[in-house]
Amino acid sequence: MKRIKLLIQYNGTNYSGWQKQKNGNSIQSEIESAIRKGLGDETEVFASGRTDAGVHAKAQVAHFDTNTQIDGKKIYKILNRYLCEDIKILDSEEVDSSFHARFSVKRKTYEYKFYASEVVMPLLEFNHTKISSKFDFKKAKSVLKYFVGTHDFRSFCSTNTNTTSTVRTIYKISLSKSKDENIYFLRITGNGFLYNMVRIIAGTIVEVGLGSIKKEDIKTIFEKNDRTLAGKTMPAKGLTLLKVEY
Amino acid sequence: MKRIKLLIQYNGTNYSGWQKQKNGNSIQSEIESAIRKGLGDETEVFASGRTDAGVHAKAQVAHFDTNTQIDGKKIYKILNRYLCEDIKILDSEEVDSSFHARFSVKRKTYEYKFYASEVVMPLLEFNHTKISSKFDFKKAKSVLKYFVGTHDFRSFCSTNTNTTSTVRTIYKISLSKSKDENIYFLRITGNGFLYNMVRIIAGTIVEVGLGSIKKEDIKTIFEKNDRTLAGKTMPAKGLTLLKVEY
Repeated sequence: MKRIKLLIQYNGTNYSGWQKQKNGNSIQSEIESAIRKGLGDETEVFASGRTDAGVHAKAQVAHFDTNTQIDGKKIYKILNRYLCEDIKILDSEEVDSSFHARFSVKRKTYEYKFYASEVVMPLLEFNHTKISSKFDFKKAKSVLKYFVGTHDFRSFCSTNTNTTSTVRTIYKISLSKSKDENIYFLRITGNGFLYNMVRIIAGTIVEVGLGSIKKEDIKTIFEKNDRTLAGKTMPAKGLTLLKVEY
Repeated sequence: MKRIKLLIQYNGTNYSGWQKQKNGNSIQSEIESAIRKGLGDETEVFASGRTDAGVHAKAQVAHFDTNTQIDGKKIYKILNRYLCEDIKILDSEEVDSSFHARFSVKRKTYEYKFYASEVVMPLLEFNHTKISSKFDFKKAKSVLKYFVGTHDFRSFCSTNTNTTSTVRTIYKISLSKSKDENIYFLRITGNGFLYNMVRIIAGTIVEVGLGSIKKEDIKTIFEKNDRTLAGKTMPAKGLTLLKVEY
């Protein structure tokens, strides 16, 4: 028995998310099916974390255990034969059995992409969210600093979050803009993220840029531990899991 | 009767190209249908040029004539109500009746996007073409200069090109690379392009980067006027019409 670590990229548009579900095709079930067909193993694949329906991953990490004799470094090529173009394994390697894709995570980085326009941009639609063209970049940037550090993110997670602690640490957050178009990239690196946390932080920052949340309100939103004070949950399609570090 | 100029963006993935066809849904027929529904005009829409099945446009230009009383600057909003998210009109304005979207063109700019990788990248698939990871950027860049200027592009167009002259002028050509990934952007600006010309030039430059066409061969390929000497026609999905200038 050996443990294999996978680096996975997927376009989440047509999937019900990472996790296996009774109805709906998930990323997890597609990969488990590829392992069954390619290696003959009936096994469970563990990811660094679930991604919701429609969320993309540039480099998700997962692991599984297998009895195959095939070299760990070659496994990704075999699995890719059984995966469609929406999901591909970029790399694979054998790792120590102490490695766990979820529990060994040190840092994760997400990117939320949006564009400010009055008209839908067909070439951006699949992985960006359209917001109002009235968006003020400088105003939005001015509140980024409030999110950095260790905070209780109770106001910035879904109310049906089921976890013992809502305290998380954000190491880094940045908002950048494309040169020639009004496309914005919000990148957040943290030690972990609560349910919908990135999408709610993105929604809050966008609302600051649009003026419906004031800069001064951010501290209060943290203090009040009240989800209804933060911004809207931004749509899944704009969210991409960029990197997982161990 | 007034003439309206449209600026159009489309994701060509699910369309048979710009031009109306008996079988297959075209960009042109979708826009003509939106004009029928939104303005009540049964009219033909003329684009700066046809794009093939699967080719995208960031800013295609087209025109049509209408009897509507609606302000030209507002027409795009009305048409967008009848268009799906794959095709949107970014702008509209009334122009002089001497303007013709095709015959008045001065310069057009296309972009061909590809990435060098052993594995398919699901997040790039819809508008990039995968090539071998052995691609040599410097080698490919070294031949760009041969394409600039006024030349007979007979070797760089489809053999079923039906035109009086295959002489065209390329004003500018550049090949750039993304910072953190092996994604390449080939941009070509010219006074006009022959059938499949950008895709064949892209294929030739890619083959130079892969070593299957030598730098010294490019001049010969131009001289021989023989399509079989140039590189392969690259897939449609990597091609985007970026800009049309009048």
